[in-house]
Amino acid sequence: MRKITLKLKNIKYPIYIGNQIIDRFPDLCRKHGVKPHLAVITDKIVAGIYLDEFVSILKKRGFAPEIIIVNPGEESKSLNVLSKIFTDLIQMKLRRDETIVAFGGGVVGDLAGFASAVYLRGVNLIQLPTTLLAMVDSSIGGKVGINHKLGKNLIGSFYHPIFVFSDVNFLKTLPKREFMCGLGEVVKYGIIMDAEIFKIIESNFDNILNLDFKLMQTLVFRSISVKSSVVQKDEKEKKFRMILNFGHTIGHGIEAGLNYRRLKHGEAIMFGMIGESFIAFSRGILREKDFSRMRNLLFKMGLVFPKKFLAKDVILKHIGYDKKIFSEQRLNMYLPMKIGKMRFFNDVSFGEIERALDFLFNQN
Amino acid sequence: MRKITLKLKNIKYPIYIGNQIIDRFPDLCRKHGVKPHLAVITDKIVAGIYLDEFVSILKKRGFAPEIIIVNPGEESKSLNVLSKIFTDLIQMKLRRDETIVAFGGGVVGDLAGFASAVYLRGVNLIQLPTTLLAMVDSSIGGKVGINHKLGKNLIGSFYHPIFVFSDVNFLKTLPKREFMCGLGEVVKYGIIMDAEIFKIIESNFDNILNLDFKLMQTLVFRSISVKSSVVQKDEKEKKFRMILNFGHTIGHGIEAGLNYRRLKHGEAIMFGMIGESFIAFSRGILREKDFSRMRNLLFKMGLVFPKKFLAKDVILKHIGYDKKIFSEQRLNMYLPMKIGKMRFFNDVSFGEIERALDFLFNQN
Repeated sequence: MRKITLKLKNIKYPIYIGNQIIDRFPDLCRKHGVKPHLAVITDKIVAGIYLDEFVSILKKRGFAPEIIIVNPGEESKSLNVLSKIFTDLIQMKLRRDETIVAFGGGVVGDLAGFASAVYLRGVNLIQLPTTLLAMVDSSIGGKVGINHKLGKNLIGSFYHPIFVFSDVNFLKTLPKREFMCGLGEVVKYGIIMDAEIFKIIESNFDNILNLDFKLMQTLVFRSISVKSSVVQKDEKEKKFRMILNFGHTIGHGIEAGLNYRRLKHGEAIMFGMIGESFIAFSRGILREKDFSRMRNLLFKMGLVFPKKFLAKDVILKHIGYDKKIFSEQRLNMYLPMKIGKMRFFNDVSFGEIERALDFLFNQN
Repeated sequence: MRKITLKLKNIKYPIYIGNQIIDRFPDLCRKHGVKPHLAVITDKIVAGIYLDEFVSILKKRGFAPEIIIVNPGEESKSLNVLSKIFTDLIQMKLRRDETIVAFGGGVVGDLAGFASAVYLRGVNLIQLPTTLLAMVDSSIGGKVGINHKLGKNLIGSFYHPIFVFSDVNFLKTLPKREFMCGLGEVVKYGIIMDAEIFKIIESNFDNILNLDFKLMQTLVFRSISVKSSVVQKDEKEKKFRMILNFGHTIGHGIEAGLNYRRLKHGEAIMFGMIGESFIAFSRGILREKDFSRMRNLLFKMGLVFPKKFLAKDVILKHIGYDKKIFSEQRLNMYLPMKIGKMRFFNDVSFGEIERALDFLFNQN
């Protein structure tokens, strides 16, 4: 088991990473002063596979968990579901010095994390992610929240757990498509800051798809290191944290252009990364060799650009293109200089975005 | 205009206090970097009296306020009303660097404050209290939140405004009963920490009821100083902040014993203060002279103990009395040693509480 300590302005807390370490979870709870009575919030899928085992591990070590199960999927990040969670927490008399364990993927982490932030003005939270994306992304950095019918993640807090516990063994039951979305995020960390991550995936692609747990542990560890270092430098989303948005300008245009259907968020972001790398390549700041490696690895992940369902002008509009002020419009964006290194630009034009989209439309 | 700076671990912010200072509000906004586009959350009563004037003052100085009006009363501190506020904020496109002004009494402050804490993970907040209780209590200390059908204030945050602005001129339209509840809180600050407050009210009772604004400004200033000093020492409600709960153990028993009808919270707390002072007097730690002054002043405020509607055993049960463990039960409580000075005790028995209730039942 390895440990990364996330040090923020006012608090620090550890992130534990390992394989088949769930047996050690109760001891860590004890070490962190978690009271025996606690709430576990999870979803139906995770509960179906892992809940019995997890509850028995907790009970064996003297904990008295009470369980709240929500439906899987983004729809659970709603005020309605949150309200039901509050009712459950009050009825189980969870006290202010007690703890909520968020046991699941990103939806559970965001939802249970936000419940922890505001129930009794804040109770202890443990993030126990079960998906690759939650392990390397959503469980790190303190962003918790829910959706509003008018937009995603509009209601929430910055609220940090007492610790994060990432056991890559949970990945063995993760559907392939979910795994790939998480791996896309890992590739992103490679491109923005840690060339070694990129190399490992490039050179061990098949082993990784076959879930080599040792490699996965290394990748998760290094990814969390990258995200932690960014969050430490920029806790509340000022400029530097934008480096994590690599791929998001074009990626978001694509997913919005598809009405959030067909592609998962992570998949849209992978196309976004290709597109934004193309901009860097066209500017001559990214060498062709690096651009090819990035493009090849990302396309190797089974991506097929759904061009039949997309229109370039619709994507551009979602990115914010406005005909009337076209010539002046410039975007802020970190672009890759090489694998593992980014630089901030404030002058990306819609012409460049458009040519990047042309490049994507001309693939496959 | 006077100013108190509340210094907390990670932030500090000013509380401005004055009479007829509303004209200076826009300048202070500018000074604190408030963007022109802002949301004002208020209730129907305050809106009916003050909104036109307030909006015109803001517009004259280049601000573009958008208004959200909720129903007055505790029922508005609900997830439903909160959800509607989110919809309004999203539709008016309030951005993360923009500001919400909580313009009203305690309900508006708690509700709008909590909305500010979680909308877009936190936008700027200004507390602009219009009731005496909100000026001296709820606008100070960062506690914001809403109720749940199973209990009050169960959902919320600690979230601090960029500044608080208390103009005692708003008190001229405050109903007498509301004013008395606020004054009870002011008396409490006198008893727990600032004997001068107590003396001022004792010696100028009629002038205060006739709203001598100069005196009110002094009382509000001194009360906020007391509350600020407590909050500074104990930001997140550890032991010391319990000093603010003087009168709350018995007071809460009384209001619960009445099913939260007939008495307002502030009125119940005043009876609680008399009861808890009686305990101190009975213990011999509070001299009879001080006890009489406290009792006389509080009863002078028009309090009539609604004994017809109360049963002693019901009150005791709400305070937590349990027959089976009677002999061991002890309560934590700050008790007055004299006017302006409290001490912490961890050994208050239900026998003492019962005799204090007898004392109350034997009044009037």
